[in-house]
Amino acid sequence: MSKLRYGVAYYDEYMPYERLAEDIAMMKDAGINVVRIAESTWSTYEPQNGVFDFTSVDRVLDAMHAAGIAVIVGTPTYAVPTWLVKEHPDVLAVTAKGLGRYGARQIMDITNPVYLFHAERIIRKLIGRVSKHPAVIGYQTDNETKHYDTAGDNVQLQFVKYMREKFGTLGNINERFGLDYWSNRINSWEDFPSVVGTINGSLGAEFAKFQRGLVNHFLAWQVALVNEYKQPGQFVTQNFDFEWRGYSYGVQPAVDHFAAAEPFDIVGVDIYHPSQHELTGTEISFGGDMARSLKRGNYLVLETQAQAFPQWTPFPGQLRQQAFSHLASGANMVAYWHWHSIHNSFETYWKGLLSHDFKPNPVYNEAMTIGRDFQALSQQLVDLRKDNRVAVMVSNEALTAMEWFKLPDGKTYNDVVRWLYDELYRMNVECDFIQPSFKELNQYSLIVVPALYAVEDVHLEHLNEYVRLGGHVVYSFKSGFTDENVKVRSTQQPGIISEACGIGYSLFVTPHEVHLKSGSMDLGTEGEKIEIWMELLTPTTAEVLISYDHPHWGEYAAVTRNRYGQGTATYMGCMTSPAVAGSVLKEAVQEAGLWGSNQELAYPIIVKSGYNSDNKAVHYYFNYSDTPASVVYTHGEGMELLSDCAVKQADPLDLDPWGVLIVLEG
Amino acid sequence: MSKLRYGVAYYDEYMPYERLAEDIAMMKDAGINVVRIAESTWSTYEPQNGVFDFTSVDRVLDAMHAAGIAVIVGTPTYAVPTWLVKEHPDVLAVTAKGLGRYGARQIMDITNPVYLFHAERIIRKLIGRVSKHPAVIGYQTDNETKHYDTAGDNVQLQFVKYMREKFGTLGNINERFGLDYWSNRINSWEDFPSVVGTINGSLGAEFAKFQRGLVNHFLAWQVALVNEYKQPGQFVTQNFDFEWRGYSYGVQPAVDHFAAAEPFDIVGVDIYHPSQHELTGTEISFGGDMARSLKRGNYLVLETQAQAFPQWTPFPGQLRQQAFSHLASGANMVAYWHWHSIHNSFETYWKGLLSHDFKPNPVYNEAMTIGRDFQALSQQLVDLRKDNRVAVMVSNEALTAMEWFKLPDGKTYNDVVRWLYDELYRMNVECDFIQPSFKELNQYSLIVVPALYAVEDVHLEHLNEYVRLGGHVVYSFKSGFTDENVKVRSTQQPGIISEACGIGYSLFVTPHEVHLKSGSMDLGTEGEKIEIWMELLTPTTAEVLISYDHPHWGEYAAVTRNRYGQGTATYMGCMTSPAVAGSVLKEAVQEAGLWGSNQELAYPIIVKSGYNSDNKAVHYYFNYSDTPASVVYTHGEGMELLSDCAVKQADPLDLDPWGVLIVLEG
Amino acid sequence: MSKLRYGVAYYDEYMPYERLAEDIAMMKDAGINVVRIAESTWSTYEPQNGVFDFTSVDRVLDAMHAAGIAVIVGTPTYAVPTWLVKEHPDVLAVTAKGLGRYGARQIMDITNPVYLFHAERIIRKLIGRVSKHPAVIGYQTDNETKHYDTAGDNVQLQFVKYMREKFGTLGNINERFGLDYWSNRINSWEDFPSVVGTINGSLGAEFAKFQRGLVNHFLAWQVALVNEYKQPGQFVTQNFDFEWRGYSYGVQPAVDHFAAAEPFDIVGVDIYHPSQHELTGTEISFGGDMARSLKRGNYLVLETQAQAFPQWTPFPGQLRQQAFSHLASGANMVAYWHWHSIHNSFETYWKGLLSHDFKPNPVYNEAMTIGRDFQALSQQLVDLRKDNRVAVMVSNEALTAMEWFKLPDGKTYNDVVRWLYDELYRMNVECDFIQPSFKELNQYSLIVVPALYAVEDVHLEHLNEYVRLGGHVVYSFKSGFTDENVKVRSTQQPGIISEACGIGYSLFVTPHEVHLKSGSMDLGTEGEKIEIWMELLTPTTAEVLISYDHPHWGEYAAVTRNRYGQGTATYMGCMTSPAVAGSVLKEAVQEAGLWGSNQELAYPIIVKSGYNSDNKAVHYYFNYSDTPASVVYTHGEGMELLSDCAVKQADPLDLDPWGVLIVLEG
Repeated sequence: MSKLRYGVAYYDEYMPYERLAEDIAMMKDAGINVVRIAESTWSTYEPQNGVFDFTSVDRVLDAMHAAGIAVIVGTPTYAVPTWLVKEHPDVLAVTAKGLGRYGARQIMDITNPVYLFHAERIIRKLIGRVSKHPAVIGYQTDNETKHYDTAGDNVQLQFVKYMREKFGTLGNINERFGLDYWSNRINSWEDFPSVVGTINGSLGAEFAKFQRGLVNHFLAWQVALVNEYKQPGQFVTQNFDFEWRGYSYGVQPAVDHFAAAEPFDIVGVDIYHPSQHELTGTEISFGGDMARSLKRGNYLVLETQAQAFPQWTPFPGQLRQQAFSHLASGANMVAYWHWHSIHNSFETYWKGLLSHDFKPNPVYNEAMTIGRDFQALSQQLVDLRKDNRVAVMVSNEALTAMEWFKLPDGKTYNDVVRWLYDELYRMNVECDFIQPSFKELNQYSLIVVPALYAVEDVHLEHLNEYVRLGGHVVYSFKSGFTDENVKVRSTQQPGIISEACGIGYSLFVTPHEVHLKSGSMDLGTEGEKIEIWMELLTPTTAEVLISYDHPHWGEYAAVTRNRYGQGTATYMGCMTSPAVAGSVLKEAVQEAGLWGSNQELAYPIIVKSGYNSDNKAVHYYFNYSDTPASVVYTHGEGMELLSDCAVKQADPLDLDPWGVLIVLEG
Repeated sequence: MSKLRYGVAYYDEYMPYERLAEDIAMMKDAGINVVRIAESTWSTYEPQNGVFDFTSVDRVLDAMHAAGIAVIVGTPTYAVPTWLVKEHPDVLAVTAKGLGRYGARQIMDITNPVYLFHAERIIRKLIGRVSKHPAVIGYQTDNETKHYDTAGDNVQLQFVKYMREKFGTLGNINERFGLDYWSNRINSWEDFPSVVGTINGSLGAEFAKFQRGLVNHFLAWQVALVNEYKQPGQFVTQNFDFEWRGYSYGVQPAVDHFAAAEPFDIVGVDIYHPSQHELTGTEISFGGDMARSLKRGNYLVLETQAQAFPQWTPFPGQLRQQAFSHLASGANMVAYWHWHSIHNSFETYWKGLLSHDFKPNPVYNEAMTIGRDFQALSQQLVDLRKDNRVAVMVSNEALTAMEWFKLPDGKTYNDVVRWLYDELYRMNVECDFIQPSFKELNQYSLIVVPALYAVEDVHLEHLNEYVRLGGHVVYSFKSGFTDENVKVRSTQQPGIISEACGIGYSLFVTPHEVHLKSGSMDLGTEGEKIEIWMELLTPTTAEVLISYDHPHWGEYAAVTRNRYGQGTATYMGCMTSPAVAGSVLKEAVQEAGLWGSNQELAYPIIVKSGYNSDNKAVHYYFNYSDTPASVVYTHGEGMELLSDCAVKQADPLDLDPWGVLIVLEG
Repeated sequence: MSKLRYGVAYYDEYMPYERLAEDIAMMKDAGINVVRIAESTWSTYEPQNGVFDFTSVDRVLDAMHAAGIAVIVGTPTYAVPTWLVKEHPDVLAVTAKGLGRYGARQIMDITNPVYLFHAERIIRKLIGRVSKHPAVIGYQTDNETKHYDTAGDNVQLQFVKYMREKFGTLGNINERFGLDYWSNRINSWEDFPSVVGTINGSLGAEFAKFQRGLVNHFLAWQVALVNEYKQPGQFVTQNFDFEWRGYSYGVQPAVDHFAAAEPFDIVGVDIYHPSQHELTGTEISFGGDMARSLKRGNYLVLETQAQAFPQWTPFPGQLRQQAFSHLASGANMVAYWHWHSIHNSFETYWKGLLSHDFKPNPVYNEAMTIGRDFQALSQQLVDLRKDNRVAVMVSNEALTAMEWFKLPDGKTYNDVVRWLYDELYRMNVECDFIQPSFKELNQYSLIVVPALYAVEDVHLEHLNEYVRLGGHVVYSFKSGFTDENVKVRSTQQPGIISEACGIGYSLFVTPHEVHLKSGSMDLGTEGEKIEIWMELLTPTTAEVLISYDHPHWGEYAAVTRNRYGQGTATYMGCMTSPAVAGSVLKEAVQEAGLWGSNQELAYPIIVKSGYNSDNKAVHYYFNYSDTPASVVYTHGEGMELLSDCAVKQADPLDLDPWGVLIVLEG
């Protein structure tokens, strides 16, 4: 990627009247230099089985090329045509809820050969047609691909074979999954029941893992097809998305992003987040850190919000702040969903950069300033490199297992991840994400491990060893509790990591009116109460940082720290307030020797740093608030790029409400 | 209708022991002069396929006639017999939820020929038998007829033909409904999918309109059958009901009442409403105004509550107040659901005038006074005529479209209708309801238009023209936003009415801590905050009445008024408190020259006026509260009918708690 | 039963590694003298159709016997093997929700002959094999058996035959069930519809009664099978459970416990209850009183909680207090669900006496003291006899009828039962449960009748007669309202009991801001407000204890008492606060001459008394609170058994927090 890309999703097919020339003129005015097309409109390109019409693709490619706007072409396979479903209703996924029915996107069985046959043909036709067009810089396979809960008979059959391949014998499965319980034991392969009704979380979690594998397989198959046509300089990407809670919240349950990203040239993501008075930048940072970590490099924000929902229409300044926030996390491209606001159907109120009237509006006008700055600063800001010393360890397996065994109040894995991640964000500690299988833990000085509930022994032993050799780990409650088959460990909890943590427990309770107490830490007045979960920890060698203030559980520790070998392991046995979690993490960051001047600042002032392609340090400063702020610049002499003013160490930096400044050192 | 009717629904079939003579004696004591029978008991009248037994009908007709009580006979088609469903399970409607199952009423496919065959036969048998009986004054076809969400394969097939008939080509449909989106495009008629799973609101709304058409067709077919037997002086009516939110709340989503009412001789309705401390009279007024507007004449209240639910058992005085409230809106009949409280099944706790013990009780005793007064005052009060100068424009199409595109917090069309209607009610501004297709807008001085979200261009142009020629319109937010296919207009919003309103907007947001400010209006202290929805209005020629008090949206207008030609158009861009809505409407009423002495009174004092069949003015005064009240009489000299006392202008009128007075001028 | 049993459920089949010897050693340390095995693991014992493997049963029996631990063997029929469902999917119950699917336990059609064939074979194989083993002291048939909502075509067919057998003619059915309503009338047996969709509560309640009959039949069939093998001295029991609201709340809706208990030798139950700060002992008392009443004798607590859920992990002292609470209600055995915490599947977080690590823990350590005391005190405490003078009359029919006709706010029958029972518990009034069909009412001085909503005339007449002859009754609202077919009585309410109660009513309302007033009773300041339900009572001969404080309902009585013959009937027409209910019950207890020194104590001090097998009085004292307490001992001289100290009348008894003392008189 040689430059910053500023883009939109564009659908000539959706326009209520001829717009192409005028749209391109408006894009040019806004500095748009890339559009993303084609992934939603199979039924337009193949109006009948085997009849193809790429008129709108051709004309958009030609017009964009003439205007100097690059194009990313998506394979249109995530929404199936009406004729395909009429001819072969079984392309729709059968799920635990029963037969599928036509209407929405993302409703097909991604293992169905009829679907795959037709998908392959439209991919070959489309990509074969466009690959040599000079406007095309890359491809997106499908969109926000998942397994759509496909669980019909054919999928069950594949799952049985997968189980036999993986576990060898039913005896092995019965034992590891505890199937004697409630007479679920399977004694002949033919008896293997459909797992859609299972009440065995181990089996259910394995099926979810198998389903995630289907996504990996499907995407790799698409990439291989597209690669047959890909020209030098072009890339293939995928639009990964996150757990959705009305916005991009956490680790994606239905896809193993790390595994799925492997065949791609570059990672793409969509990131949506609360806005207006609720804009904090946290999701931009979270999604960016994840995207950057998947292939350990820069990434594309293929979709993010322009106006979007009524509750997200940005305040003046926010669109601009958001765009630079993406760059500050390592994005090389920021593209909006979508250019115009669609006049019919499901996303009528998911507004684009333009309103339904196609006229310039305050949001579009702000985009014009962004486009101009992206163009001017491209060489200085593109390809930002991070050398983070902190990692957060996440796991699809832990996530799924905790869906089966939820915390009280319905809290799940991502609640724990975000509880800790958000505090790192607020103290300006930048981090990468890693999986438990990541080998080179010693790249990091501090590893934060939220609720690593289901995991293989070897990875826990690896973490113990990491600590012994000088690393620092912060574990939350529930870590280490079960093995990779979601079987609870029969050793004392927290199992294998007890050794490094220097603690043990066998009881855990739901806190009721339980507060915390500490001899060494200031817990504040608000921050003491705990909720959801508490483990009754007994230290063996660990130091007690915090214990419970309760008539019956007062003898137990809540948070401990253990020196083990050259490093330390901190264990948080309960879900504290964010403030207390922040205090514990702060101690760990200091212990790891990572506390610097950026950490003296805190949300709503966010600082993000990295190195550009000239290996010069870049520092982004953001003010995520409605109030102007002034901070002291603490890094090497340089230029503030947006104002083109020189900055020296100890100079004040004045940040507008929802403001951004960018200092390039040297 | 030559006299006031006071009635009950009566089911000889449900009686636990022989009651007919005693029931009639008690009815006579209470002044009951009409009963409604037969619409629920097909399985009694046709116990087996083709075997008929009308014993209970015959004996009730004879006994009522002997007692001088008139009878309205219902066609018993809204609840199908067990044998019919056993023989032909496919008479049950297939809906989006799947196959139907026997048990409740109103579960059949009203297009199914097996159902229609049997329905026709029982109608002909029953109506042919009773039509010449001297007790019979009229007929009710079916009951609270709707389409019951029928959406099976046969209905889908009809819908495809309807679409082809209406739109001609698939190209036209694809474009108007935006079907390219998410690959929903249909390129061959055979590919037309069932719409039960559609995510396209345009298509979904059209299907709902088609379903409402099925109701029109079904009712017209029943009326034509009954008309074959109808004798001179008899009428055919239908029991229309309203959007149900535990009571009669708003415009009926599943039936186009205006179209459905066409074949009938007179409109009937049921109206149920909160009672006890929650009795306000609003639903009686709303339902009455709607019923009166459907055929622009008097109407029958075929069902309303006597004791009903435990939370509705009336306080002393309320039953009486309610009865006269119906008359005050133009009803010629008030009938209770139902005479006795049913001893088994679904409506055991929907109590009638009598409790389960058939003994006189406080509610029945109060009914006796009502029956006596109805009889005494019949000639003076029957056939009340209204010459309202205010109309509220309502639309099934707007309602359905807003079901697909709900306001935040799940608010829908009727919330907006009631937000404005209720304020008119509280300020004693009487109104009619009209549809957008209503031609003679100049009958009215003021037209209030809540959320006319989906509507044809021509109707909006008609409204512009109405203003230009001197009319006054108050629009709420969302009006004019989409066309009749629920496609958002691609001109600046609010689209066509921008011209008369003198405003434009392209952004809208969900308010968070947004208050209002006004230079000219007193907004009170409570009334300022807004919720749910706000459009960021920019006036072109309009005067700003109210604007937003907010750091980022403060430059935009909230409520505007524009002089256009000879009239004014007021536009309310946000959902204000009821009080602020009332203030805006008050200004519009004054502007239209309609503010009079009745408007100086306000809820809980409600005044309703009209002209009786001698063309003399009648004024009803109600006190909807637990506190006695005194008001000054401001109209021409006359008689208070319930006390038979003379009243002069400026005399005080003393109203009891939950009291009513009726002054006949002249 | 010659001694107290202290036990656990034990599953060798679920162990993650070989544990038997070590488990038994730990059991012996804890005083465990009985284990319950085998009811959940059919698929282990019959791994393929007709192939049997009882290895784990054999080895557990042998090892337990060697250790002197007795065994209760369960028939493993409540969870079906995978192969059975694969071979015959129709063994799964078809319910109102549709076809069943494999996964959970308790999902089969208990009338299906394929299921019954296989169930019989595994029962005969298992019980035949173990019956002569010296470790075996008894059997449990199935587990927590219910009808699982089975309602498929075969069940509907049986129901039609049941209806014909019971009611003779359709005319009779149509009349009693009110089927003319909404055309539900059935005129030919072939037309009888499936009742899964019925809206007729009478029919629905009869079907529920029929379904409960299926449970009786199924259990009797199992008992007969087991009896063929049962050896002298062995018993057959069933594990009955209660309405589940996250814990054992009230009368079981799906089983008629009294009828179902008949074929068994002794009653077994499971009782689960809130713990920690929410432990009150109420559910232990409620479940115990019910279990003791079913066959009017001692009972087994086959399952209760050890650690269980995170919110139930007992405070120190609570496990011990709970164990003795069971004994105080008449239990001869207390057994935990379960020995160890299961490492996989549905109940991973339903922890046993041991945590997943199998190590001693605080809860296990406390169990060791219980086992020791049970052993030491067995002869003095076993076979506790109660001679209660108070009974609470409960009814499955009333319960089901009120499911169809719920109280406002979704309150149902058991809410009313517990509203009154809990107050008896809190004032230390011990009671039995009886059904309406119970003949010897004169065994009791006071009968409390919560919401006897559906009941035959004869039972109400029996209650009238009981009062006339000197008995005392307290009725709640809704009692007597409908007959056994859930047809509302057409006499004045409360129907037949009006005579003894000396009241009548025909109106009832939902209270809104209604308070109570009384000339004779102190209603406190908190206790006055009522909710949910109020009947507007008019006394004929009754004395008004409490009336309504309300502008419109102030003339009506709320609570009345009537002297009728030699006794009194109190009628509570509304749902008062618990405190007011307690005051009314207190008056009734005093009236009945049952107020004694135990009643001067009150919750959190609970006293339970009885006679042991030497006919000596035993008094249990419990302190259900976190605060130490001292009470005065008011009974005859004796020994406090846990401390082995002598106690005289008027001595103080000092109770620890969550403490227990046991005084044996004489």
